[in-house]
Amino acid sequence: MPVLPEGQRAAELQPPVRAIDWVPVAGAPRLTLSSCELLREIQILDEYGDRRIIHIPAERPLTVFVDKRELVTLMTLGACPELLVLGYLHNQRLIARVQEVESVTVDWDVGAAAVRTHQGVQDLAAKTARRVVTTGCGQGTVFGDMMAQLDTVALPDARTARIRQSTLHRMLETMRQQDSIHRKAGSVHGCALFCGGDMLMFVEDVGRHNAIDTIAGWMALHGVAGGDKAFYTTGRLTSEMVMKSAQLGVPIIVSRNGVTAMGHELASRLGMTLFGRAANKHFLCYSGLERFDSEPEPQRTPVRVVAG
Amino acid sequence: MPVLPEGQRAAELQPPVRAIDWVPVAGAPRLTLSSCELLREIQILDEYGDRRIIHIPAERPLTVFVDKRELVTLMTLGACPELLVLGYLHNQRLIARVQEVESVTVDWDVGAAAVRTHQGVQDLAAKTARRVVTTGCGQGTVFGDMMAQLDTVALPDARTARIRQSTLHRMLETMRQQDSIHRKAGSVHGCALFCGGDMLMFVEDVGRHNAIDTIAGWMALHGVAGGDKAFYTTGRLTSEMVMKSAQLGVPIIVSRNGVTAMGHELASRLGMTLFGRAANKHFLCYSGLERFDSEPEPQRTPVRVVAG
Repeated sequence: MPVLPEGQRAAELQPPVRAIDWVPVAGAPRLTLSSCELLREIQILDEYGDRRIIHIPAERPLTVFVDKRELVTLMTLGACPELLVLGYLHNQRLIARVQEVESVTVDWDVGAAAVRTHQGVQDLAAKTARRVVTTGCGQGTVFGDMMAQLDTVALPDARTARIRQSTLHRMLETMRQQDSIHRKAGSVHGCALFCGGDMLMFVEDVGRHNAIDTIAGWMALHGVAGGDKAFYTTGRLTSEMVMKSAQLGVPIIVSRNGVTAMGHELASRLGMTLFGRAANKHFLCYSGLERFDSEPEPQRTPVRVVAG
Repeated sequence: MPVLPEGQRAAELQPPVRAIDWVPVAGAPRLTLSSCELLREIQILDEYGDRRIIHIPAERPLTVFVDKRELVTLMTLGACPELLVLGYLHNQRLIARVQEVESVTVDWDVGAAAVRTHQGVQDLAAKTARRVVTTGCGQGTVFGDMMAQLDTVALPDARTARIRQSTLHRMLETMRQQDSIHRKAGSVHGCALFCGGDMLMFVEDVGRHNAIDTIAGWMALHGVAGGDKAFYTTGRLTSEMVMKSAQLGVPIIVSRNGVTAMGHELASRLGMTLFGRAANKHFLCYSGLERFDSEPEPQRTPVRVVAG
């Protein structure tokens, strides 16, 4: 299993993870890339009484050990578990900088991710004591510590971090053309990081919380700032999705799906721009109009309502 | 706020919860029914530059206190928090019988659910020590204890617990006609409990884990057995959904959505019957064919693929 060198091309990562060239930050942890099957064939019976073979996404437990201490078990597709673990630790505020981590090693034979830190995690027990069960398609536990830190979120103002309708269209067209596990097998969520309409990274997982955590891990590993970026997610714009995006400093989120009240409240409070029901040239801008340069479509067509 | 008497009609519960007449089991806890807004109006800007008012589902934190000790914070629509809390405690195996609970009182002014037990919860700390972050649209934490108890699951055999294709059609037609928050606002998941094609209960929440927990609370409160029942869910058939259904003794699950590998594995191992992509007269039977009486459709029409 190759060790991630500087400048490795994302193409060497197994699908569905896609990313631009890497240049890890100085002192970045060693990530030994693991590999596993992402699709499984099963036989089904349909309404016509026909038996057919279809593909479904893999889903496997990954138990995370930090300095040999069990932290959590994540259910994941397994496309990029090292970045997922790194992003999980980062989003849960268990680490402040990736440099605190010496290495992340995943062993699928035992479904374990071994995280080695240089100096241990401060107050690990305390930081993981409280839990909030969130709405979002999956992540679920958001330690109380994270909620507390929301007020420290600082996003770039609306003059510097904006998005044009034409740029939004480019994002949606890119997603429309993106090959994906979802197309082959459904039942996964995708998340992508964009900069000015260009996709920097795309990842799918059985839980969209994993997808954004994986992108968070990629951003942290390479010191990628969020201020001039936008997220695309196939999942709903829940409080959790908004909080994670805010933590990463990304002020704009685009979703194929809808919004929940907490997601809307948080985004409004934090000055984030949310687009939902976004597909083809359709979208609804829920919040943060001040960051949006509207370039209205000339002719009316009915808005396609995607199941929330 | 009325106290739930024997025989209260579910019609008195606020939508979107629907259920048949209640007869709580002897020694059932007192549930004081709370009430809150389930929809919120927000103004959006669409692709044509038009500002419109739309509805989005409410989402609020509910912090559960068991005998004054904080247990967890659930993000919920708030349609039926008392049953949600009861079902959560039950599904997390924090209580074995509802009779252990004296009362559940929700105060939305402070977003708290006060659970009073008769004799306290055994080993509360130990039972909530480990966590598994699951795939499913939301629940997230499934305490390790629950995983351990999977092997104790006993479902009725395939001779006694079966489903005919025509019964499946009745379920899908009932769901198609069901009025819902989803229709008005999207972004919620629905879950329904069926017996022989008749809907016993339907509930929606921002996380489908909450929806099934609420039904679990309703079943526990009324001593409703799961062996002759079937679940309908709008969410994916993940390991979590399958585990919860198994815990409740319900051997058949129907989903508008797809299946993940762990969900499929668990269902196959437990002898449960899973139907996915189920809408109108279409479906895929993923597992547990031995419980299914196929009545093939005469003429072929393309299977509608619902986003997973």
